[in-house]
Amino acid sequence: MIDVFAEISPSEFFYRNRDLAGFSNPSRALYSAIREFIENSLDACELHGILPEIFVRLTPMDFDINSQDPKAYILKVRDNGPGIDPKYVPKAFGQVFFGSKFQLRQSRGMFGMGGTMAILYGQITTNKPVRITTSVDGIQAFTFDLLIDVQGNAPIILKKDSHPTEGFTGITLTLNLEGDYSRASQKILDYFKQLAMVTPYANFTFIDPYGRLFIYKRVTKIMPVPPKETLLHPYGTDVEAIRRLIKQSKDDSMVKFMSNNFHRVGKNIASKFLNYAGFDQEKDPKTLSNDEITKLVKALHTFDGFLQPDASCLSPLGEEILMTGIKKELEPEFITATTRPPSAYSGFPFIVEVGLAYGGKILQRGLKLFRFANRIPLLYDEANDVASKVLNEEIEWKRYKIPEDAPLAIITHVCSTKIPYKTVGKEYLADRPELEKELRNAIREVLRKLSLYLSRKVSIEMDKRRFNIYGKYLPLIAKFSKELSGMKKLPNYKKLLEIKRFQKDIEEYIDVK
Amino acid sequence: MIDVFAEISPSEFFYRNRDLAGFSNPSRALYSAIREFIENSLDACELHGILPEIFVRLTPMDFDINSQDPKAYILKVRDNGPGIDPKYVPKAFGQVFFGSKFQLRQSRGMFGMGGTMAILYGQITTNKPVRITTSVDGIQAFTFDLLIDVQGNAPIILKKDSHPTEGFTGITLTLNLEGDYSRASQKILDYFKQLAMVTPYANFTFIDPYGRLFIYKRVTKIMPVPPKETLLHPYGTDVEAIRRLIKQSKDDSMVKFMSNNFHRVGKNIASKFLNYAGFDQEKDPKTLSNDEITKLVKALHTFDGFLQPDASCLSPLGEEILMTGIKKELEPEFITATTRPPSAYSGFPFIVEVGLAYGGKILQRGLKLFRFANRIPLLYDEANDVASKVLNEEIEWKRYKIPEDAPLAIITHVCSTKIPYKTVGKEYLADRPELEKELRNAIREVLRKLSLYLSRKVSIEMDKRRFNIYGKYLPLIAKFSKELSGMKKLPNYKKLLEIKRFQKDIEEYIDVK
Repeated sequence: MIDVFAEISPSEFFYRNRDLAGFSNPSRALYSAIREFIENSLDACELHGILPEIFVRLTPMDFDINSQDPKAYILKVRDNGPGIDPKYVPKAFGQVFFGSKFQLRQSRGMFGMGGTMAILYGQITTNKPVRITTSVDGIQAFTFDLLIDVQGNAPIILKKDSHPTEGFTGITLTLNLEGDYSRASQKILDYFKQLAMVTPYANFTFIDPYGRLFIYKRVTKIMPVPPKETLLHPYGTDVEAIRRLIKQSKDDSMVKFMSNNFHRVGKNIASKFLNYAGFDQEKDPKTLSNDEITKLVKALHTFDGFLQPDASCLSPLGEEILMTGIKKELEPEFITATTRPPSAYSGFPFIVEVGLAYGGKILQRGLKLFRFANRIPLLYDEANDVASKVLNEEIEWKRYKIPEDAPLAIITHVCSTKIPYKTVGKEYLADRPELEKELRNAIREVLRKLSLYLSRKVSIEMDKRRFNIYGKYLPLIAKFSKELSGMKKLPNYKKLLEIKRFQKDIEEYIDVK
Repeated sequence: MIDVFAEISPSEFFYRNRDLAGFSNPSRALYSAIREFIENSLDACELHGILPEIFVRLTPMDFDINSQDPKAYILKVRDNGPGIDPKYVPKAFGQVFFGSKFQLRQSRGMFGMGGTMAILYGQITTNKPVRITTSVDGIQAFTFDLLIDVQGNAPIILKKDSHPTEGFTGITLTLNLEGDYSRASQKILDYFKQLAMVTPYANFTFIDPYGRLFIYKRVTKIMPVPPKETLLHPYGTDVEAIRRLIKQSKDDSMVKFMSNNFHRVGKNIASKFLNYAGFDQEKDPKTLSNDEITKLVKALHTFDGFLQPDASCLSPLGEEILMTGIKKELEPEFITATTRPPSAYSGFPFIVEVGLAYGGKILQRGLKLFRFANRIPLLYDEANDVASKVLNEEIEWKRYKIPEDAPLAIITHVCSTKIPYKTVGKEYLADRPELEKELRNAIREVLRKLSLYLSRKVSIEMDKRRFNIYGKYLPLIAKFSKELSGMKKLPNYKKLLEIKRFQKDIEEYIDVK
């Protein structure tokens, strides 16, 4: 038997292994396709400071909703983002590993391939091209009909034309794909609901195959500050990264090279580091030998004088936006949230935010976990996620005296330049120790606040009951006392019955009215 | 802010996202590197019918085992396989998505990238080339020193020479990489132990960084029949696959096309199918329009006259080899195994084998699960695996009357042309319903056998005890009876005390002595 060697293209690889990217069956694929396009739209809008307006419609291709699933659907997604320069459109949508997500900056997309995977899946299940309309100037729009050449990993342009547009910028995308909406609908609706919770500054409209209209309305115009692109932190470097930096850099001395190319490394730290590592400050980085590069990387990982990454490349929601979103979707009796200070793992900065909602009419009894990463809801594989691990194994629930069946929701949000996903399908986060620690601290903090609220609530209830009894007897006692003492006027007992100050107490512990 | 579009190479993608391939940290990376090379060696040996001899040595690069982990290690792996033609060596080891694993045939490697990922990881952590020596004829060997150009996804040959070899064929590979043996050692030793269990026809030698020598000796020379390459099953097709088949095929009629290109489709079935699908038998497949291809695929998925995939492309261990391996490593009191008939999911055939071991001196109390897929031990993420799901949720344990803390091991082995892994790191299998069903049936079968053995064992124990009592009193009764009846000779009561037939019963229920 002879081994046959062959080369395959990236498209071919993911075509063969689509389970890896979340396209394992018609139900999952429908869900993945919808989220990939929405998330691309949100990334584009936010980076350009545009309040997102996203329209999604899913229609059975044969217009018969009662025909059996799985079947072919038409998915239309439209955004009001900045659009994509038409010259990039074919490759951005028709080539795996071509995209705009390859900088070191927080974004929902991490792998730069979700959209192309959805288009590929649509093509292999329905044999139809995708249609993309883009306008960047609001004057002219360009429409492309594309197929993907899987073996060549290249777009095939079937049709291209342009037409005037009336002020509209953004992308409209129409895709045909096999799906199973009867199985996927619950996940898709959950996705929208949770997305609205974590993106309260966006409008989402979804028309489902039954013609049902779901509208998630914007409740705030405050958007998170867009993340900045950042330099690599010394702890996150490797030999390959250093070699590239040297190749690109025009610095002619090590001290300049160090202070121009790394996150939070100035001349002072650069100089101290070079002494530590045993390099001449004035040495030209282009003259470093292979062994010297290895030595440099080793020193970069062990020197303890570097500053922790700062968070300017991150864009957390902040407690206020997070609480606004939670309040909107869950309408709880009590709500609180906390944003932890920035931390880092392997040189990648991250921030953990945790919200907590308790009571109200929507939440059911028991604990519900909502997980988000870079503002994406994560709906699958909850049991494997680091947040589940923390909740189940690392929280001493007894300490907080919260009834076991309390109607409770914990909302976790991790943002980072590199979310430690364990699959391309972006379902759950690895249990990096640094991440675990921040989640643990944040969850403890919100639980303490709930615990305090609940104990206050109990004591206020007791006070109220006591006052109700006083309220019954105090007038009688006052009356009898008056008669016994022969006074003419009733004593002013009403002041004693004021419970306003207790109500103030309650308000203090409900963070948002 | 402007979107920067860029193209990245497959090497670059996996360089940035090495978590996806099982190279997330120095401990995991060491484990992954060792297994990827061993598994490539085993695949090569078995495909050529060679009894595998695999030698693995791991040495600290600074020769100081007490220096702190993580640190640089030298990993050497040598096999006695067929070797690789030197003209393919640079690309096979230095280019992602180039390999020999892209046919439809059972093999340990699925993604054709594990070896290259390990080399890439070694390069970025130690900045050293990999050295590969190959000989295919046993006369001449070729040695390459290689680096990977990550951005270009291409091998860089630093050195190449050739020298005579004395009858040796196979590959020797020397790689430098950062690792953490103090953390990884347990997993690596578990891996060898389990690999030996499922590959009892191979010799493995491992010298660990402490200089400890681990030898796993071959106990049988019977190897599983190598898998054959197979055609695609109609249920596993899509539009893209059909388009390629049409392009390659020289058939000038649909009926020829159907019967030459699909698994278990002969003229008879092809003809029935074409009637069902509404295609002319004599139509030239090259004239099919896009819409007709779509219609064809739809019919291929819905026609119920196709045969289930056969298993000639699969290579299960078989009950005998599986039990030999289990016996060797676990030395149990009772052992059984079952190989299920072939089944299929989405057109991919698979076979489930399950072994069970009970008692003996090695097994501890409680249930231990050993998982294998295409003869690879799966050590990580057990809780997510379909076999865990079946054991925990679908088996009515009470029915089998097995004590809860019984010293029990269940060994599951799934082989398929396409294992439904959920990550490139090959850790656990998705819960495809067809797979779940076969596992459930196989596990029930071995549990029934154990249950029967245990109840026999109990009744034999009781019989023995009874016989011990008889053994005490029967001679006395015989003696008294003799005296009472005035007989001269003792009756022959000894025959009544023979328990041989019970021992036979025991033997029948222990499948392997």
